[in-house]
Amino acid sequence: MGGDRGPAEVVAGALEARAAAVEPILVGLPGLDTGGLELVEAPDTIGMDEKPTEAVRARPQSSLVVACRLVGEGRADAVVSAGNTGAMLAACLRELRRIRGVHRPAIAVPIPARRGPSVLIDAGANADARPDHLLQFGHMGSVFAREILGVASPDVRLLSIGEEAEKGNQLTLEAHALLEASDLRFGGNVESRALLEGAADVVVCDGFTGNVCLKLLEGTIGTLLETLRAEIASTPRGKLGGLLIKPAARRLRTRLDPDTYGGAYLLGLRGLAVIAHGNSSRRAIANAIRLAARGVENDIVGRLTAALGAEARPAEQIPS
Amino acid sequence: MGGDRGPAEVVAGALEARAAAVEPILVGLPGLDTGGLELVEAPDTIGMDEKPTEAVRARPQSSLVVACRLVGEGRADAVVSAGNTGAMLAACLRELRRIRGVHRPAIAVPIPARRGPSVLIDAGANADARPDHLLQFGHMGSVFAREILGVASPDVRLLSIGEEAEKGNQLTLEAHALLEASDLRFGGNVESRALLEGAADVVVCDGFTGNVCLKLLEGTIGTLLETLRAEIASTPRGKLGGLLIKPAARRLRTRLDPDTYGGAYLLGLRGLAVIAHGNSSRRAIANAIRLAARGVENDIVGRLTAALGAEARPAEQIPS
Repeated sequence: MGGDRGPAEVVAGALEARAAAVEPILVGLPGLDTGGLELVEAPDTIGMDEKPTEAVRARPQSSLVVACRLVGEGRADAVVSAGNTGAMLAACLRELRRIRGVHRPAIAVPIPARRGPSVLIDAGANADARPDHLLQFGHMGSVFAREILGVASPDVRLLSIGEEAEKGNQLTLEAHALLEASDLRFGGNVESRALLEGAADVVVCDGFTGNVCLKLLEGTIGTLLETLRAEIASTPRGKLGGLLIKPAARRLRTRLDPDTYGGAYLLGLRGLAVIAHGNSSRRAIANAIRLAARGVENDIVGRLTAALGAEARPAEQIPS
Repeated sequence: MGGDRGPAEVVAGALEARAAAVEPILVGLPGLDTGGLELVEAPDTIGMDEKPTEAVRARPQSSLVVACRLVGEGRADAVVSAGNTGAMLAACLRELRRIRGVHRPAIAVPIPARRGPSVLIDAGANADARPDHLLQFGHMGSVFAREILGVASPDVRLLSIGEEAEKGNQLTLEAHALLEASDLRFGGNVESRALLEGAADVVVCDGFTGNVCLKLLEGTIGTLLETLRAEIASTPRGKLGGLLIKPAARRLRTRLDPDTYGGAYLLGLRGLAVIAHGNSSRRAIANAIRLAARGVENDIVGRLTAALGAEARPAEQIPS
């Protein structure tokens, strides 16, 4: 049921993603036209603006919670949703639970940087984070870059307001020390100005900063291209030029289009979850399902569990 | 002496800014060629990578500290520097001191948004901030928008990760409540995706978030235009189109050029200070000096002192 464009768009995306190795199951209101795909009925829904934890507790039969439960019960390999992100996180924590030793699940988003994709983690699961959370985000991001993006030895950098170790806020100063002392390939701080150019294989930050960056990237790209279009269209000469550069502009748009990835992994859980943009098109939904399938094929959850095993024990005392 | 391009560029900018009502004074090493402008000699300098507070304490005769002292002693009306931002802040705190009741000075940057300028405050003076600091940033930003940008009744919004009041981190949740209860024209949270389009007259955030946003904006605009240029130049058809849209692209670049403002006010001090980009061109330096002159003409410091007077008393107990 999730997504700003309504269930028909989600169904269309699922039909598009259906392939020999991918069998989408839809979870939604009874009677939903699934175009022949399996429907698991859920009588309830959670809106985009509801308070996550309360909504999940109050509506265990909502499509979001039921979809997560299918994974928890082993009836599905992964869950994809374009619904309320906070509710998705709460539903996943409830139905999938965290990998042993993981403090906080985190959203890992591949940024289509110029030099190749960078994993931005956390892109919004935890508005407040501690230094040891950021260290774990570094580990989770490294596993993602290795297993999904195919980077043999990913470099990890910490997003801050200066490249020097002593530049940053209290959180990044402490996280810097933890990352430096870890066995990650830590390259130090990186500034946000390098994000779209290509800052590192993995860029670590708290979920507030990551979410601000992600939305600023999207908004700035959109506004800039739109402003340029308007400037070009303001003169006849520009209009002609605009026609001629159309293919180039289209190539750029395609490269930067968030729909190309379609979604982001919610990492750190005992099952695979993909969060799609609320405003996902059918193409985005299809790509999000493919991303989920790729995560299942590469056993992202198993590899994360193994990779985090080493440093899992000391974290056990902090179950929050 | 400040700025990545060396003193000659700063001197050229000062000469360019000289006008009937603006008389630049240069502060630098003995023997500096000032092209006829007054030189106040300072035997020492502070580098871009030095630790701010220590450097300012260790080198009271550095050009940065001496320049601030001229304002503190009434021998100049404002100070402009393209040097080490942290050291500038430390030197200003030492030589100019805070306005009574101000907790923390903040950097106010005019963002060249599509719908007209927005004041982003704090853009990097305070990497860590408290909710009451953000409230004061709102007041300082309002005075800036009214007195310098000429907005009769500026609206203030809080940068967060969702428009709803309950979206954000601990800092923004608490700041939201304080802003809501204030006499500011508070419009609630705003997301970073709206920054370049035009989010509000004043956008409030902590200095870490503000600095990340500012650098991400600059970097994204630069990378995007460069990527588009490369795509266009990759085919003969594109190249021709590129020639035709050149004037449109140039108009866009000029509008977004940070040199247009040249600098940012460091607000909350008993004297006027403008921080210019480290990499400032002579044009940027000239515009930063003009920005400083405009601040003096509009008595920004006096107006801020008056505007903050009302809510100054309860803050007095927190001198940090």
